[in-house]
Amino acid sequence: MNKKMVLSILGKIIWVEAALLLLPLAVSIIYGNSCVYAFLITIAVAVIMAFPLTFFCKTDNKVIYSKEGFVIVSLAWIIMSLIGALPFVISGEIPSYVDAFFETVSGFTTTGASILPDVEIMSEGILFWRSFTHWIGGMGVLVFVMALSAGVPDRSIHIMRAEMPGPIVDKLVPKARNTAKILYLIYIGMTFIEILILVMCKMPLFEAVVHTFGTAGTGGFGVKMDSIQGYSPIIQWVIAVFMFLFGINFNLYYLLLLKRVKSVLKSSELWVFVGVGVFSCAAIALNILDTCSGIGEALRLSAFQVSSIMTTTGFATADFNLWPGFSKTLLLVLMFMGACAGSTAGGLKVSRVIILVKGMRRELTRLLHPRSVKTLKLEGKRLDEQTISTTASYLTVYTACIILIFLILSLDKFDIETNFSATVACFNNIGPGLGVVGPAGNYSEYSVLSKLVLSAAMLFGRLEIFPLLLCFSPSTWTKK
Amino acid sequence: MNKKMVLSILGKIIWVEAALLLLPLAVSIIYGNSCVYAFLITIAVAVIMAFPLTFFCKTDNKVIYSKEGFVIVSLAWIIMSLIGALPFVISGEIPSYVDAFFETVSGFTTTGASILPDVEIMSEGILFWRSFTHWIGGMGVLVFVMALSAGVPDRSIHIMRAEMPGPIVDKLVPKARNTAKILYLIYIGMTFIEILILVMCKMPLFEAVVHTFGTAGTGGFGVKMDSIQGYSPIIQWVIAVFMFLFGINFNLYYLLLLKRVKSVLKSSELWVFVGVGVFSCAAIALNILDTCSGIGEALRLSAFQVSSIMTTTGFATADFNLWPGFSKTLLLVLMFMGACAGSTAGGLKVSRVIILVKGMRRELTRLLHPRSVKTLKLEGKRLDEQTISTTASYLTVYTACIILIFLILSLDKFDIETNFSATVACFNNIGPGLGVVGPAGNYSEYSVLSKLVLSAAMLFGRLEIFPLLLCFSPSTWTKK
Repeated sequence: MNKKMVLSILGKIIWVEAALLLLPLAVSIIYGNSCVYAFLITIAVAVIMAFPLTFFCKTDNKVIYSKEGFVIVSLAWIIMSLIGALPFVISGEIPSYVDAFFETVSGFTTTGASILPDVEIMSEGILFWRSFTHWIGGMGVLVFVMALSAGVPDRSIHIMRAEMPGPIVDKLVPKARNTAKILYLIYIGMTFIEILILVMCKMPLFEAVVHTFGTAGTGGFGVKMDSIQGYSPIIQWVIAVFMFLFGINFNLYYLLLLKRVKSVLKSSELWVFVGVGVFSCAAIALNILDTCSGIGEALRLSAFQVSSIMTTTGFATADFNLWPGFSKTLLLVLMFMGACAGSTAGGLKVSRVIILVKGMRRELTRLLHPRSVKTLKLEGKRLDEQTISTTASYLTVYTACIILIFLILSLDKFDIETNFSATVACFNNIGPGLGVVGPAGNYSEYSVLSKLVLSAAMLFGRLEIFPLLLCFSPSTWTKK
Repeated sequence: MNKKMVLSILGKIIWVEAALLLLPLAVSIIYGNSCVYAFLITIAVAVIMAFPLTFFCKTDNKVIYSKEGFVIVSLAWIIMSLIGALPFVISGEIPSYVDAFFETVSGFTTTGASILPDVEIMSEGILFWRSFTHWIGGMGVLVFVMALSAGVPDRSIHIMRAEMPGPIVDKLVPKARNTAKILYLIYIGMTFIEILILVMCKMPLFEAVVHTFGTAGTGGFGVKMDSIQGYSPIIQWVIAVFMFLFGINFNLYYLLLLKRVKSVLKSSELWVFVGVGVFSCAAIALNILDTCSGIGEALRLSAFQVSSIMTTTGFATADFNLWPGFSKTLLLVLMFMGACAGSTAGGLKVSRVIILVKGMRRELTRLLHPRSVKTLKLEGKRLDEQTISTTASYLTVYTACIILIFLILSLDKFDIETNFSATVACFNNIGPGLGVVGPAGNYSEYSVLSKLVLSAAMLFGRLEIFPLLLCFSPSTWTKK
């Protein structure tokens, strides 16, 4: 384990977080919020922590392996959340540190699950920071550091692999650093376009910015008690479409920029994602038609909720907790799949589902024709056996995590529907679940133990389990 | 496809079913039930169906492959259920054929889910047949035919593999037919011992017989509205212990008969099964202690329900639907695992869970040390890669089935807890779920569509998905 390198990168992360905190600081100054000093203190704490890590952990050995990648990413996300929770506590707007930590983890992991019973009484500076964490966590903070910093280690693809969602992480261009830059530029570009359109649709600038952060990171923190429900239908459509766009693999946008439209249209992941989306949207619209004023409203409500759940964002324009059983169940099922790999969304990821289904079909063929040999392909490329078996194991560990979290939550006072949907909604980084934690509810009533477990669930879900599992496995830390 | 061989074996199955129907016929004559003629008509129908299959489908080509094995087993189970439902309808005791089919499938698959609101008004003959289907389905009817018949096809191990539960089916002795004989002798022996003990504990003979059928097949149909709750504590303990015994791999009993105790004690599946059972029993006993008269009652209720759910039997001595959330959730989770492979129980099977966990741990090691090569072992034998990947795919198709059934059920009028637990309880061949289908409820209120889907779920669960899936896949029926 190249410990010096690990510590030095962690130092960089904290510097970056301190720099990013300048933005909410500026917002709180502009709005004259009393939380200004909360950001100042947090920045000071971050600088005090970052200083020794940067200056005492210099090393010439910049080689890292997958082991270091897992450790860096795991520790970086935990430390960022620990520091990021401070402004909430210091400002007194979320007095309990556990609650603030839950809210921050929910922000960085782009979950959007909240312990706030009333979000409208919060100050602008705090609301901005809360939503900004979505934007930071969406594309990944280490990817950001790699894009910025010249001193990235060799083989930094290991860091990208550990942080970027999906079963396969490829470099767009030969250098990992340049890939990170391209991804971030697309991300920033799309963010600006959405803010612009929302402002053109007459959403106030501050609200346009925070809602765009929530959309871009597929997070879901809003600034209104009724999420997006109170806005005009056109704004609802804009956000629905952008949620869907941020759920698509960013590599496809890069191909679009290169004008390789044909390659984009060949993406089977894209087609499955769109297909499931359209089918679910139609099925739910039909199912809720009776309760709506017409097919237009039914489609709008259905499209928004499907887009929000499939991309694991969690915004809402309707309390789907009150919808008929079929719609609720379909949304619950969609929570598992999530959106495309290489997007900002959570869940199992569409490409992983495709690999699992392909692997399953091959097994069925093998049972009939034991001697058949068939290689599987995804997006035109051969899938190596390693990826197939890692994906299969991912489903095992994913299921095991859900069972464990569900069991611990069941010690709390809520019903099975609430606990199960809370497990699924946090682990897949969605936010609202069903029952008490539905779109009209929140997570504030859970015990401290449950909140800590759900915080861990969000981190495990965002980092796709393996990095954290390996980081806390003894064999990672013992010398061979 | 060796169609003549397939049809001729199906003919044999129907002959055997006709013969087995003589037992409930005898019972109904002894008790003077009016359902005597219902059994006579059904036997006549079976003979009329079996006759042409046996005499016009003679063939010298007795070679079958895995394909034929899947088809024979799938069709045999469907036909047996279709015929087995007739006595219920003809006697008028279950007027709807769909309800009768559901009840029969539930019997043969040893699920124990019932559509009967009041079981105590049924006649003895019908109750006997209902429980006898559990006993027949438990060890598998094709295994029974193989044990009896001299004219079994070559490679009949393919039939055993398709019908016997678990990821690996080994022959105990070189000939599949002799293995089948040994298994059935053990099964019959244990059945007699349980009847004897129950009668010694002062249970009336008829009730001892039907409850033993339910225990041996790990089915769960009883003859009382409150299942086993009304019997004495000693009877409850006897049934709890026998459920557990019938959930253990029968190969271990064969080893016991050979006095190879050491080999038995080395079985990791046995230890995991016992370990999970003891842990769950203790956890639930602690959780329900407040509601019980003392630790003795808490342990008895907990042990009975844990044994019943883990072995997928479904008898009850308490309405666990009213238990605290943790106990309900733990029981729901146990429903997935099921008992040992090679027993009469359903669910994923302990050995499959062990293989999944071992595969997952190997993947984690590989992520840290990409060049490591490790072979996995189970019960001292090397696990071939084929078994590992088939097991992994089994989890995928298992999850896909649960999602599909759950979605279709959600079109019905019940809540998510009821629908999800009904899905899990039928697919894993347990019987009672939570909510409306809890131990104090039944499945009668579900729509015809839901009942048919749940019947299919029970068959898919009992035959472990692949045979039925392959039987209805076009590529099985097209010539190469």
